[in-house]
Amino acid sequence: MENPNYDRYVKKANNKDVSLEDLRDRLAEFAQVRGWDQYHSPRNLLLALVGEVGELSEIFQWKGEVARGLPNWSCDDKEHLEDELSDVLLYLIQLADVCGLDLGQAALAKIVKNARKYPVNS
Amino acid sequence: MENPNYDRYVKKANNKDVSLEDLRDRLAEFAQVRGWDQYHSPRNLLLALVGEVGELSEIFQWKGEVARGLPNWSCDDKEHLEDELSDVLLYLIQLADVCGLDLGQAALAKIVKNARKYPVNS
Amino acid sequence: MENPNYDRYVKKANNKDVSLEDLRDRLAEFAQVRGWDQYHSPRNLLLALVGEVGELSEIFQWKGEVARGLPNWSCDDKEHLEDELSDVLLYLIQLADVCGLDLGQAALAKIVKNARKYPVNS
Amino acid sequence: MENPNYDRYVKKANNKDVSLEDLRDRLAEFAQVRGWDQYHSPRNLLLALVGEVGELSEIFQWKGEVARGLPNWSCDDKEHLEDELSDVLLYLIQLADVCGLDLGQAALAKIVKNARKYPVNS
Repeated sequence: MENPNYDRYVKKANNKDVSLEDLRDRLAEFAQVRGWDQYHSPRNLLLALVGEVGELSEIFQWKGEVARGLPNWSCDDKEHLEDELSDVLLYLIQLADVCGLDLGQAALAKIVKNARKYPVNS
Repeated sequence: MENPNYDRYVKKANNKDVSLEDLRDRLAEFAQVRGWDQYHSPRNLLLALVGEVGELSEIFQWKGEVARGLPNWSCDDKEHLEDELSDVLLYLIQLADVCGLDLGQAALAKIVKNARKYPVNS
Repeated sequence: MENPNYDRYVKKANNKDVSLEDLRDRLAEFAQVRGWDQYHSPRNLLLALVGEVGELSEIFQWKGEVARGLPNWSCDDKEHLEDELSDVLLYLIQLADVCGLDLGQAALAKIVKNARKYPVNS
Repeated sequence: MENPNYDRYVKKANNKDVSLEDLRDRLAEFAQVRGWDQYHSPRNLLLALVGEVGELSEIFQWKGEVARGLPNWSCDDKEHLEDELSDVLLYLIQLADVCGLDLGQAALAKIVKNARKYPVNS
């Protein structure tokens, strides 16, 4: 109960983990049934990603330093932030997909690379 | 066999899906054992994310239009791209985490919102 | 008359050149009389700049490759682009100013550095 | 002497103002004599700009809030920042130029628009 990661374990037990592959497949279908995949070239998606990173930055731009956990933010502000974080993620997944790359495996590999590059001081 | 999504189903059968929650937990532990979490304020992570989006853009900057699947790219160039896509993802996951937000659930909710906002023409 | 730079020389003769120092002074006064300078910390202005780069990217995001001179763009689209280019410039000038740096001299010095780094093939 | 803007007036008296038109012309010549203008399409320059905004962000990413005037920064760090601010500016000027837009006039017009949009409280 005192474990700060308790909530996480509960979520896992509830089997609600969201995989990059699942999101990728949903997005591919979403674009296809709307005929949008014709616009999804790598550089179009990259610029769309940059646009969403801009919207994400706008949320933080006049706030000065922001505390972890966003203690004084309203529910609306948090939901707005969730939307913009999601938009960045969704374009990133689609960019990797149209490039034919496996983002999930790439991310795991990058963590391994980083662990080798920055060994823990013992 | 002729299903273009065959590879994806095989991957799923191989149980290699990568979840956002798993990446988040690995990253949190990675930062903690190195004493880096003290630097992981929301705006620090946001600027680190912007830095990685810049490196991602540099890969595409002088190429003109790029074809889906990156047909003429070398393995090294593709691996470089995988690294930069991953760096963006890893900072995004950490940013959501220090904000106390569930990126996976937020992404699913955003896809539902988008589906309502842009209904399929019937 | 056949000189492609003719228009530029005419503009110069008309003495309409716009200096970075003039823009900086106008912006400093603009913020001061509105009491906005209290929000103009370096990182706030940097994130505002990133936000405007996002809006600039949104203009180009679904267009595929765009030809020089924007031959098929409407006047409204060009004015929108001028606005976003300007917003990026205005935040960049203010960021340099609150950092106590002289952007104009820095830009001249950078061009000299670049000329040394990339000599013309003779 | 006690005027905080004294240095600015001296600089103006020394006629060292740097105009956007002068920078634009220097950059156009710089690219032309190196044969680089063939790569300067609008979206290539935009992505190069995003890349430089990323490098600018990297300077600020782990610093937490930064005070105006950068009081504890080394000369090397300030020069690095001047370089990155300049790189953003130089690509922005070139992007406006290949789009056939007058960035200086656009910036003046945007300040006028902003003044109308945000009148000073009287």
